[in-house]
This record gives sequence, C-alpha cells and structure tokens, in this order.
Amino acid sequence: MSAVAYVNGAYVPLRAARVSILDRGLQFADSIYEVWAVRGGRLRDEAAHLARLRRSLAELRIPAPMSEAALGAIIKETMRRNRVREGIVYLQVTRGQAARDHVFPSPSVRPTIIVTAKNLNQKVIAARAADGVKVISLPETRWARRDIKSTNLLPNVLARQAAREAGAFEAWFFDGDGLVTEGTSSNAWIVDAQGRLRTRGLSHDLLHGVTRAALIEAARRLGVAVLEEAFTIDEARVAREAFISAASNPATPVVAIDGACVGEGRPGPMTLRLREEYLSRS
Amino acid sequence: MSAVAYVNGAYVPLRAARVSILDRGLQFADSIYEVWAVRGGRLRDEAAHLARLRRSLAELRIPAPMSEAALGAIIKETMRRNRVREGIVYLQVTRGQAARDHVFPSPSVRPTIIVTAKNLNQKVIAARAADGVKVISLPETRWARRDIKSTNLLPNVLARQAAREAGAFEAWFFDGDGLVTEGTSSNAWIVDAQGRLRTRGLSHDLLHGVTRAALIEAARRLGVAVLEEAFTIDEARVAREAFISAASNPATPVVAIDGACVGEGRPGPMTLRLREEYLSRS
Repeated sequence: MSAVAYVNGAYVPLRAARVSILDRGLQFADSIYEVWAVRGGRLRDEAAHLARLRRSLAELRIPAPMSEAALGAIIKETMRRNRVREGIVYLQVTRGQAARDHVFPSPSVRPTIIVTAKNLNQKVIAARAADGVKVISLPETRWARRDIKSTNLLPNVLARQAAREAGAFEAWFFDGDGLVTEGTSSNAWIVDAQGRLRTRGLSHDLLHGVTRAALIEAARRLGVAVLEEAFTIDEARVAREAFISAASNPATPVVAIDGACVGEGRPGPMTLRLREEYLSRS
Repeated sequence: MSAVAYVNGAYVPLRAARVSILDRGLQFADSIYEVWAVRGGRLRDEAAHLARLRRSLAELRIPAPMSEAALGAIIKETMRRNRVREGIVYLQVTRGQAARDHVFPSPSVRPTIIVTAKNLNQKVIAARAADGVKVISLPETRWARRDIKSTNLLPNVLARQAAREAGAFEAWFFDGDGLVTEGTSSNAWIVDAQGRLRTRGLSHDLLHGVTRAALIEAARRLGVAVLEEAFTIDEARVAREAFISAASNPATPVVAIDGACVGEGRPGPMTLRLREEYLSRS
C-alpha cells in the first residue's frame, strides 16, 4: 500500500503530493500545523487540537479553510486510506499561493490544506519510554510567539540536530533568565523534591501543549499536585524526575541532561504512572 | 509570454512549478534565499549575493547544490527565458525532501533549488524614490540569527502587514535596548546632524545587506563619512534624513516614522545623491 495525502481537495499519492513554489508556506513560513496522536485507530484529543488550530489561524489571521466538521471528515478519511491504527496525523495550513510579497495577499487567495497520516513504530516509542531519553540545553533562539504552532521552525531544526549530534533525543531551550521554556517539539517537566509536577505556565514563550493539558488532568485524577512555574536547568538536574510530553511521546522520561544523570538515571516512577494514566484514557 | 521557473533541474511554467509537501522548506522553513536586482539585463552585485548564499548554506550546513558557475548559468537562463531587463531574480535552496523529522535527513537527500525571475514596474520603484516611504517601528520578535538569509520569515510577514495597515511601506524592528536592527526586508539608515551616514554594524542581529555594502562603497566614493553604529527610533525621528536599502529598493528615502515627519518630510538630498551614485555603477 502506498501512502496517500490530502492536498487542497484531492487525495493523491504522497510521492506525487505537491504545492506551488509560490506557496507562502514555502517562501515565508507563513503557515501553521497540528499533529494528532492516533491510538487504536482513534484520534486522541481531537477537539483540543482543533481548538488550538483555530487559535493559531486566528492569531495569524489566516481564514479558516473549512468547517471543523469537514476538516474532521478529511482527517478520518486520510487515516482510513493510510490504514493508520497507531501513529499520527499531520495537518498543515498555509496562507496560500500568491506572487511573492511579505504583506498578506488578496482575500480571494485560499489557504493551502495538507493532511498526511502514518503509523509509527510502537516498539521505538515503547523503548523510549522504557529506557528514557537524554536532553541537552541550549539558549533560546526562537521568535517571540512560540504559542502559535507555526512552521517557523528553523531554530528548532538546528537545536534538534545539535541534540542528535550530542547523543541526545531532545534539546531544551532556556531563556535569558536561565528558565527552561520547552523542547524543540515537546514540553518540559520535572518532579520536584516534594513530588509535585512542575512545568512552565502558559504564555507567548511556549507552545500550549495539548498533551501537556491532558497530563495536568491525568495528574489531578491521580491526586498529584501540579505547579505551573518555570524551572532552571540546574533545578532540573537535581529534580527527582524529569520528562517531556508531546502527542507522539506522552510523558517520556528524561534520564540525563547535558550528560548528567537526572535522579538515579532511569525512568522515574511518577513519570511512568502519569504516562499509564494518560494512556488509559485514549 | 508566460513565466518560467527553474526547479531541480528543469525549466517549467511558473504556474506548474511545484515541490513536494515533504519539502523541508515547507515543513520547517529549513531553507535560505537570495534576491538579485537586474538592471539593464544584468545582475547587480552578482558575486556578493553568491558569497552570501554560500555563507547562509554553510551556517545551516546545507550542502552547496552545485558550483557557483553552474548556478550562475541557471540564473542567467531563467532571466533569458523570462526576458528580464529591469527586475529581480529569486533563488531559494531548501534542505530537500524527506519524511518529516526535525533532525537533518540522510546526506543522500539533495537540496531543492528554485529560481524565478521577473520584471518589476520601474515607475512604482521610481515613485517610491521620488515620494519617499513611511515606516513604523515595532519591537524585535524574530529569531536570533537574522544574519542567515533564511525563509524563517513569519514575523517579517506580520510586521510588514502591520506597516501596510498603518499606511506605511516598511516596519523597523527595535531591540531590547531600543536600537533599530533593520526593516522586514531592508536595512535601515539615517543621516545625522553632522551629515554622516549611520547604519547598524554587522552581527547576528541583522542581515548583511549586499546593497548596504554597496552603498557604503558609494558613500566612500562621494567622500561621505559612514558610521556603523546602531541608532534609536528617537534618533531617527530627529535625523536630517532617513532611508532604507534593499536590492530592489536601493537608498529609498524614509519621510515619516510612526506618523512623524523625518527632516522636512520629503526625500533628503544626501539619500538621493547616494542612490544616484549607487545606480551609476550598475
């Protein structure tokens, strides 16, 4: 079976799926995206991702390309055509195709819509949870509106590559005050000495993670205190546990930061309990 | 005559010129670009733009897609096929097409190369020089490496749109110290009370403008002092003259900043003299 993508009204083979070289997503990173986890053939947190998509579009004043019901139907059809049971759906919406000019094009220009879906190797994801991952820390270099899930991702790419070359899975950015903002494609968490979960509060500085919100709910169900307050790399290094969260990597343990062990250097029990609670409600 | 683009080895009608939805330029803004002015059918500052292209690629570790001689030949053929005499050439190089992953793809992935060329309406550009343009000022919101000419341009788009809605042509960003970095697609200059040209010195904070460098040379030929030192918006407001520079808008007078007149609110004599000197050496 070959992969299929939805692009602007048509389902096409992924290898033939294309956009114009004048697409503003390509020329200006003038576009946003969303990634849903698919578990057991169903979208996880469907409505929360659609709400964030709506917010990103509104912040950039990109017109909503269609109703959420229509978009939901396209997402499910793309999943079906790609027989996705355990994986992800990727959606990208750009401001559309127009002669190159920084200013917004005519309102008659229609946004470009792209949807792809694929299964992910569950053994790799499970191994990541079982073994934990390493992170490195880097100074924040991104633009000022990380709350908008835009494709303005070049600094994320460079930081992630630096992590890979350091033998790590993720990079955590820290701001001018030394406080961790988030990872290149995940939110950052610690478990402090009192057993509380700690993650930075929402602002323009970081993505408003859908999985982050779902984990806060899971923690509340477990009766675990959550403190939405930023922490430094030094605080993370001496934390009891640390972990990252993203749609495709929910509550994934961090076992080392900049080469130094976190806690005992293996996945923490609170992280794994939280992960289990989160996954039990797919 | 319909427009022609060069994309990855082929000349194709612009309206049919496409890249994969998996192109890293589209998904991550993992790409760089250059814009050359064409005057009298010839590329202006050809070598300096190629040198900056080489530097941008090196900073992002995107392999040079071909020799500069081969690229120069493609640029000239694209100009020829589009009969460009007075206009611009646009070149974009992305890290290529690969399954979505922040980390760099396999070295076997070849960069995507796109070249387009078009004539520009010279009356519009001349009117801009004759009438001057208005600018607004906005806090700097971009990523930390503005010296790399990347397509990570979403904040530039938003600022330029804000300028348009304020009745202005360009927006000047100012940093945390209140010092102007540059415009969304141009460098920023003033003429101070002593008649000296002043523009911010080179660093990671701003694009190393090719036209900026050519104007510094032009100023030296005219015996005009140039001070490479940043200025505030307040300094610009009380300057004798102000102007912007870009390949397609060399030494274009700024007559108002945030609604207040600069100097006498009309194009300054030094700006126009500099522009003339620059254009005399095309």
